[in-house]
Amino acid sequence: MQDPFDQKKSQILKDIYDSEGPDASPKGTIDELCIPIMELINTNKDMVTTSSCSGRVSVFVEGSKGDYQDKNGVKIGAKGDGGHWLFVTHDENEVPNWWIDKSLVFNTSAATREGLRDDTRYILYKFEPLILHVKCRNRETAQKLYTTAMGCGFRESGIGTNNLVGIRISIKLDVPIGLYDASTEKCHMFMAEDYLSVLTKLSLDRFKENRRKLQQLYDAIEHSLKEDSPTKKESKQERANRMMEEGLARRETVRLRKQQEKELKQKLADAAVSN
Amino acid sequence: MQDPFDQKKSQILKDIYDSEGPDASPKGTIDELCIPIMELINTNKDMVTTSSCSGRVSVFVEGSKGDYQDKNGVKIGAKGDGGHWLFVTHDENEVPNWWIDKSLVFNTSAATREGLRDDTRYILYKFEPLILHVKCRNRETAQKLYTTAMGCGFRESGIGTNNLVGIRISIKLDVPIGLYDASTEKCHMFMAEDYLSVLTKLSLDRFKENRRKLQQLYDAIEHSLKEDSPTKKESKQERANRMMEEGLARRETVRLRKQQEKELKQKLADAAVSN
Repeated sequence: MQDPFDQKKSQILKDIYDSEGPDASPKGTIDELCIPIMELINTNKDMVTTSSCSGRVSVFVEGSKGDYQDKNGVKIGAKGDGGHWLFVTHDENEVPNWWIDKSLVFNTSAATREGLRDDTRYILYKFEPLILHVKCRNRETAQKLYTTAMGCGFRESGIGTNNLVGIRISIKLDVPIGLYDASTEKCHMFMAEDYLSVLTKLSLDRFKENRRKLQQLYDAIEHSLKEDSPTKKESKQERANRMMEEGLARRETVRLRKQQEKELKQKLADAAVSN
Repeated sequence: MQDPFDQKKSQILKDIYDSEGPDASPKGTIDELCIPIMELINTNKDMVTTSSCSGRVSVFVEGSKGDYQDKNGVKIGAKGDGGHWLFVTHDENEVPNWWIDKSLVFNTSAATREGLRDDTRYILYKFEPLILHVKCRNRETAQKLYTTAMGCGFRESGIGTNNLVGIRISIKLDVPIGLYDASTEKCHMFMAEDYLSVLTKLSLDRFKENRRKLQQLYDAIEHSLKEDSPTKKESKQERANRMMEEGLARRETVRLRKQQEKELKQKLADAAVSN
């Protein structure tokens, strides 16, 4: 009978690389930036990656807070009734000018405009950095991975139950940029449009720092794995070759799928126009 | 001989309540809001609180980034050369109008003003929520405390090495509000003054939510401790009485010390004027 950890690991890897789609996340694909570190971790027989996000920018409209008084507190950044994303991306190239075509209203004098009631629905701009969850076979492996991550400055990391290590860092942006008027469905920004360019610049800085930290973590984990078992591991070149081949194959699959989806959407759009 | 954990716990409690000062932190006193939960946790023989912050608002000027090109990345929110706090408080009552008398310049068109170079020094406004570290005697206690915290929505909690549990939640604000011109020593805000009122309102909302979560955590830990040892524990009334007495005594000590410091400062100021 297969060891329970090995069984779980096979299942997770199968789900990741399943023919139905490379990932169960709503986005549908694993962030490309995460693939090398995931593959590195998964080469070790005592670890398996369970979820990851390479970092993202999102703009979120809070849901209705009409019933906040029935609860014991103020709902902050909650989805609730009518909460929705204005924008979300894992690709830094998509960040500049994200606000074009969103019909935003700038320079709203918020404090005077409606007095910022407790049920005001804010629009929140966020940069969230890399987060990685790794299930380990035993406590020793979990502790070692945790220590490696902390040593690279992932200071908000921690071990949960069942030797699941959460690797977290605090390179963030969490900015209230406007308020949502549900009666007109307009987004009123608290500041001038050029502040969104400031946020773009600061987000790109954070994407860059995030990539640097990811690389640092990759190198530290690689070094730590080598220390563990110098003989059992592939050589650097062997691994590089294997990963390149696997990665190319996987990316080709994703590219084909995206192209098919695009063609399907185009067909649906054409059909809608001709009806 | 005393058990190592008990020895460590005695030392930590001694340091906290030492006659030299109730806490080793730069602020000099333990946040009042944290005292009840610290005392609750410390009644349990298998846990001791090692550090805590009940939540705070801070405004920080980044240090000089002159040498950023020598490093591998962009320094973000780093102290560096000349980094300093414009404002910091754990007391929500001090947040409104924190910017008065800081000679801030508003409505700076940042993106056009100097093109946001890589070495631009930003001014960052932050709300940071409750954080609590608890050292546990053994893994079981650590796991149980972790599970309790996660169950209350402290989703960024984790267990570190030596059964140290970090209890963290993500109610945050992390807002670039301006840039610092070192040549003139002026702080240029990216937006109008009324945006700082917006941030005040949002910070007060977060202080409120933070208090609610702290109470929820307190109740859950209390419940969990009762489950552990229904006979060994004090009754709710006994504990309430004891904590009130201890708390009053401690607060009186802190109050007296603050008053003495104030009188001393006044004397020094008077002496400076008369010289």
